[in-house]
Amino acid sequence: MEDYRIFNFNAGPAAMPLKVLKQIQSSFLNFRGSGMSITEISHRSGLFNDVIDDAVERAKRLLKIDDRFHVLFLQGGASMQFAMIPMNFLNGDDTADYVNTGTWSTKAITEALVQKKNIRIAASSEDKAFTYIPENIRFSKNAKFVHLTSNNTIRGTQFHVFPDTGSIPIVCDMCSDIFSRPIDMEKFGMIYAGAQKNLGPSGTCMVIIRKDMLDMECENLPTMLRYSTYAEKNSMYNTPPCFGIYTIGLMLEWLEKDMGGLEQMDRSNMEKAGLLYDYIDSCPFYRTTAEKNSRSLMNITFRLPDENLEKAFVAEAEKNGLGGHKGHRSVGGCRVSLYNAATMEAVRALIEFMHSFEKENRS
Amino acid sequence: MEDYRIFNFNAGPAAMPLKVLKQIQSSFLNFRGSGMSITEISHRSGLFNDVIDDAVERAKRLLKIDDRFHVLFLQGGASMQFAMIPMNFLNGDDTADYVNTGTWSTKAITEALVQKKNIRIAASSEDKAFTYIPENIRFSKNAKFVHLTSNNTIRGTQFHVFPDTGSIPIVCDMCSDIFSRPIDMEKFGMIYAGAQKNLGPSGTCMVIIRKDMLDMECENLPTMLRYSTYAEKNSMYNTPPCFGIYTIGLMLEWLEKDMGGLEQMDRSNMEKAGLLYDYIDSCPFYRTTAEKNSRSLMNITFRLPDENLEKAFVAEAEKNGLGGHKGHRSVGGCRVSLYNAATMEAVRALIEFMHSFEKENRS
Repeated sequence: MEDYRIFNFNAGPAAMPLKVLKQIQSSFLNFRGSGMSITEISHRSGLFNDVIDDAVERAKRLLKIDDRFHVLFLQGGASMQFAMIPMNFLNGDDTADYVNTGTWSTKAITEALVQKKNIRIAASSEDKAFTYIPENIRFSKNAKFVHLTSNNTIRGTQFHVFPDTGSIPIVCDMCSDIFSRPIDMEKFGMIYAGAQKNLGPSGTCMVIIRKDMLDMECENLPTMLRYSTYAEKNSMYNTPPCFGIYTIGLMLEWLEKDMGGLEQMDRSNMEKAGLLYDYIDSCPFYRTTAEKNSRSLMNITFRLPDENLEKAFVAEAEKNGLGGHKGHRSVGGCRVSLYNAATMEAVRALIEFMHSFEKENRS
Repeated sequence: MEDYRIFNFNAGPAAMPLKVLKQIQSSFLNFRGSGMSITEISHRSGLFNDVIDDAVERAKRLLKIDDRFHVLFLQGGASMQFAMIPMNFLNGDDTADYVNTGTWSTKAITEALVQKKNIRIAASSEDKAFTYIPENIRFSKNAKFVHLTSNNTIRGTQFHVFPDTGSIPIVCDMCSDIFSRPIDMEKFGMIYAGAQKNLGPSGTCMVIIRKDMLDMECENLPTMLRYSTYAEKNSMYNTPPCFGIYTIGLMLEWLEKDMGGLEQMDRSNMEKAGLLYDYIDSCPFYRTTAEKNSRSLMNITFRLPDENLEKAFVAEAEKNGLGGHKGHRSVGGCRVSLYNAATMEAVRALIEFMHSFEKENRS
C-alpha cells in the first residue's frame, strides 16, 4: 500500500524527495548489512567514515570546489553561526560589513553586537519593509568580511547576483537556497546553511569554509565554538549528528544523480517559480510582496484581498492535500516554498487550486 | 522478511529498542496521517508541538520532577555543555568545584579554564588512572555549583551514590546513564546528556535545569549560548533537531510503557551487568579495569591476557554477530556497553561467546 502523501510547501523543515525518504526507510533496521540502524552505528566506524566522506565529496563536486575549502557539519542551526562568525573572525578592533535584508540578517547583526564586536551596516532594505535587495553597495575597505543573507525566507527576496566585494570574502547565510543553483565560490570565505530546507532534516548545519579563514580565528575560544575544531577532525571532534549527515549525503546523491547537478537544478527551480509567479502576476486576486527583480525562487510570498480570505485559503488548501501555505507569523499573508524537492506536479496542483479558490472567492 | 540484526554493544551511538526503530520506520513517509515525514513537518505545527510536549512530560514523569524544572533540547552534545555551563553560571569572581573522574570531566574542566573562569578541582581519581570514584569529597562552601560526570564511558566507572554537597547544586554530565535508574533530582541544579546512548540518535542534547539556575545567568551572552533562550521558547527559539526530539519521545515512551519506568529499568540494568561481571570475575582470562565498588552498570571495561588476544576477541565477536567490543581508542582493551536497550538475550549470547573464546585461547 502506498502511503498517503501531500504536496508539501513548508518553509522548513520542508519536503524531501520521496526517493530519499524511501531509501532511509528501507534500510532503517539494517544499514548496509551491518545489522544496525544508521542511528545505532559508531561514528568512529569505517561505515560512518564512508558516509561523511561521501557527503563531503559530493558537496565539493556539486559546488565545483577544491581542497582550499573545508565542508563541515555543525549543530545549532544558522542561529549558532550568527554568534560564531563574529566570535571567530573579529579580533579587537577588526570590523565587518553586514547587509540587512530581513529578519535573519537582523539576527546575525544582533549576535555580533551583543559580543560588542565592531560591525557596520553597509546597506539595508528596512526602509521598504525588506521587500527588495539593495544594489550598488559600498563596502568598507578594511572589513574583514561582508555578511549577507542570500535568500530571505520570510520576505521572499533573494540575491540573484552577489555584490562585488573585491578581495573581501563574503560570509553568507544560504539556509534557504544552498545547492539550489551554481555559485561562484571564489567570492566566498564561508557559506552556511541549516539543513532543513534544501538538505534534509533539521539539526545539522553545513558550513563550507575557505581554509585561510581559519587563520583569522580569535584566541581562547571554547573548543566547540572554533571552526578549526571541526576542520581538524572532519567534523568529528565529538559525536556528530550522524542521521543528519547521512541524510544530507542521500540528498546530495539525489541532486547529483537524479537531478543532474546544480545547473539543471537551477533551471528546474526557475521553471517552477516562474510558472507560479506568472500565474500570480496574471491574477489580481493574488499579489506578491517582493519587488519584481528581487523575488526569491525559493519562497514565494503573496497576499490575498484580505486576512480572512488568507485564512480560508490556507485551510482550504490543506483540505485539498496542499500544505504549508501560511506566511511567517511575523509578517502574515501566504507563502509557498519551492525548494529543490518541490515537484512541477506540486506547482501545477497548487496553481489549479489557486485558480479555483479565486473563482469561488473573487468579489 | 525480517532484517538482519546483530547484538550491538556500541558505546554510543548505541543500540536502540527494535520496537522504537520499527515505529520510526513504519511511519517514516506519513507521520500521524499528515502525508509528510517527521523530517518534513514544520516545528511550528500543532503536530510537532505535541511531539515535543509529550517528550517533555514523559521525561518529567519518569524522573518524578515538577514544574521547578525545565526539560530542554539543545545541540552540540555534552561538549557544547562543557563550554556553556561556566559561560552561563560563573560571573566575575564566582567559583565552582569540579570532580575529575576521567576524559569527559577533564574536558569539562578545560572548557572552564579556556574561558578564564575560576574553578577548583575538588577531587580527582587521576592518581590511579581514573579506575575509581573518589569518596568523602570536601567541597568549597562558596562554590556556585559542583560539576560531576555520573558515569565514565571510557573508564567504566560510575557514581553509585552522589556526594552530599549541602545546598550547592550539582551540575551533572549524565550522558551515559541518564534514565538508566531513578535519581533524586533535589540534589541537582542541572543534568545533561547527549542522546546517543540511552535516549536515541546523536545530535540532540537533553538538558534538565532547575529554574532558579537561570537567575545565575551571565549577561551579554549570544542568544544560542544562553539556557534562558531555550527555557523561554520550549526549546524552539530556532528550528530544533526535530527527528532527535521525536525519537527521544519514543524512547521515553518505551521506557515508561514497556520497561515499566526507572525503578524497573534499574533492576534490569543491575541484572544484565551483574551477570556479565559475575562471569568475568569467575574467569581469570578476563580482568575488569575498574575498582569493584566503582564499576559502571553501563560500560563494562575489561582486558584479556594480551593485546593480540584483545584484537582477536573483537574480530571474532563481530564474526559471531556481536558488535562494539573495542575499548575507547585512548585506553585500548575491550568494552561492552549495556545501556537500557541492551537485552538479557544479548548478554547471554555475549557470555556464551566469551566462554568459548576463552576455552579456545587460554594457554
